[in-house]
Amino acid sequence: MSTSSAIPENPGRVLSIQSHVAFGYVGGKAAVFPLQCLGYDVDVVNTVNFSNHSGYGRFGGTRATADDLRSVFDTMEKNELLAQDRLLTGYIPGAEALSAVADFAAKLKERKPEAIYLLDPVMGDSGRLYVAADVIPVYRNLLHLADIITPNWFEVETLTDTPIRDLDSLRAAFRVLHERYHVPHVVLSSIPLTPWLLDALPPSLRPASGTEQLLCLTSSIHGQAVHARCVPLIPGYFSGVGDMFSALTLAHFVPESGEGAISRAASYALAKTHAVLQRTHEYALGLPEDERQPTDDEKDVVEPLRKTRRMRGRELRLIQSQDILRRLEDDVAQRMMPWEGFW
Amino acid sequence: MSTSSAIPENPGRVLSIQSHVAFGYVGGKAAVFPLQCLGYDVDVVNTVNFSNHSGYGRFGGTRATADDLRSVFDTMEKNELLAQDRLLTGYIPGAEALSAVADFAAKLKERKPEAIYLLDPVMGDSGRLYVAADVIPVYRNLLHLADIITPNWFEVETLTDTPIRDLDSLRAAFRVLHERYHVPHVVLSSIPLTPWLLDALPPSLRPASGTEQLLCLTSSIHGQAVHARCVPLIPGYFSGVGDMFSALTLAHFVPESGEGAISRAASYALAKTHAVLQRTHEYALGLPEDERQPTDDEKDVVEPLRKTRRMRGRELRLIQSQDILRRLEDDVAQRMMPWEGFW
Repeated sequence: MSTSSAIPENPGRVLSIQSHVAFGYVGGKAAVFPLQCLGYDVDVVNTVNFSNHSGYGRFGGTRATADDLRSVFDTMEKNELLAQDRLLTGYIPGAEALSAVADFAAKLKERKPEAIYLLDPVMGDSGRLYVAADVIPVYRNLLHLADIITPNWFEVETLTDTPIRDLDSLRAAFRVLHERYHVPHVVLSSIPLTPWLLDALPPSLRPASGTEQLLCLTSSIHGQAVHARCVPLIPGYFSGVGDMFSALTLAHFVPESGEGAISRAASYALAKTHAVLQRTHEYALGLPEDERQPTDDEKDVVEPLRKTRRMRGRELRLIQSQDILRRLEDDVAQRMMPWEGFW
Repeated sequence: MSTSSAIPENPGRVLSIQSHVAFGYVGGKAAVFPLQCLGYDVDVVNTVNFSNHSGYGRFGGTRATADDLRSVFDTMEKNELLAQDRLLTGYIPGAEALSAVADFAAKLKERKPEAIYLLDPVMGDSGRLYVAADVIPVYRNLLHLADIITPNWFEVETLTDTPIRDLDSLRAAFRVLHERYHVPHVVLSSIPLTPWLLDALPPSLRPASGTEQLLCLTSSIHGQAVHARCVPLIPGYFSGVGDMFSALTLAHFVPESGEGAISRAASYALAKTHAVLQRTHEYALGLPEDERQPTDDEKDVVEPLRKTRRMRGRELRLIQSQDILRRLEDDVAQRMMPWEGFW
């Protein structure tokens, strides 16, 4: 990987706006530490203050209202504290709170057009919305402010109103994001490698057959470049992975490194995320049996703590992976490769 | 320093309960990152969510109510997430919220008597309370649960109801904390070196005359040991220093290292805090003139942003000091020395 992708020693200031949990690593707890390890000052606005992530089945705490958020944003502006070079937004509870964030993002971009905004449009997954439907238009209106977005497959379909069933519809969805919504860079990090997608991949990008794989795709307006890479799937459910991946993508995005900036950034993020997950997976395997019960909704219903213990055992080993997070060597990542002839 | 004071590779889990600010480094923002750098998983409960620290003169955001906090604590208990080996509490807004934290601390200690609780009884400074007076009795009732407390001079006087004017009254105050409130370890980090205190110090502990100095004192029930060390005063006002110092003291406290555990921990915390402040001071000196205007209340009243800019320029260079925070070598700290004959 070109050294021009290296992060400078004092890379600047990020504002992270997303959820906070007391226990474990999702939202800001999964995003802020990796950014700090790589030298970024991170300003942190919490959109919720919960006890733990919702996957535990039971969570306590409070959501920030739109007024709560505006009070923080307005005071930061009055106090001349809008000095951020980068903006990262994740889960935001509801359309009103999201509108407050959107107004703030517009203000920051107006004040500092060169600020880099990574927007993770957290709406749902696997065909299911887990936010109210009225956030969808707000996210669509926000897209033109973003430099990088990191939606999942379902979120791409939702934002573009395009069911993706083949290469044509995938191209169409990317076109909507780039051309209608003017998003410079789109990053999809963990796409299940369905048969049609596997067939569509150029042979050079297909995984060595055998283990189950996930596909990472980046699509950039610059040079109309699409890059791809497959990574082996690590079995089981982990939380906060996307939040960590988005933070690492933003951290490693160095505009100065030119056309390949986004594929380089995603290559680093992919390699580090995979390594942290691998470490987390190995740790979970070593836990006592009742902490690593396989997913079984029926049994979980009978004994809620069965699920809770499984979740606890699968919290990211983020702190124990700071050596991984900090790496800057060029060989840290197997680089994403161009998808020749995608368009 | 004995290697027995080294922090293990997986030192365990800390629960940090204190204030959160979006911009800058006080409360949890000053405490959590140092603990994480040293390998601790840190669970984080935010007692307030503000835009910036109050020293800016103007701040926005919200305070957590006692109910908000209980909702988080109760859910963590139901979900079996009270797995912390250590507890760190700082600023808590008001007696009701403090009572919620006190109930939680009692529960954690009941469940895990060996858990180490560092209590920073944040009440005021320099003769002025900045919390409501009704928190004082709540803190007194909380003291018996603490293993280490890190009050400032004024907070010692307030908790013990003892004006400290000479060595006798200092001894009396420590006796109240150790004997009436059963606090094992007391750490006072930045005591102005008044003439009577300088005279009371054994010659071996007196600073090389010249630069203005601050005194750090630890007093332990174990072996009735009092240790002291002077450090050069770094001019100007910095925020979050005490929060960072308390976190570092807890991080470096290794009970297995025996009688000297607290003086060793404070030695590390003192050396690292001083080094981070030195770096912050040097950074501030290099800022444009309007970002480093000296304190002048009259001018600040006329132009509020004058104060704001000064505060911004003096935020801790915490992220840029992670090399300092991470150090574990025995020579990192000039060790605190016994105050022979203190009692």
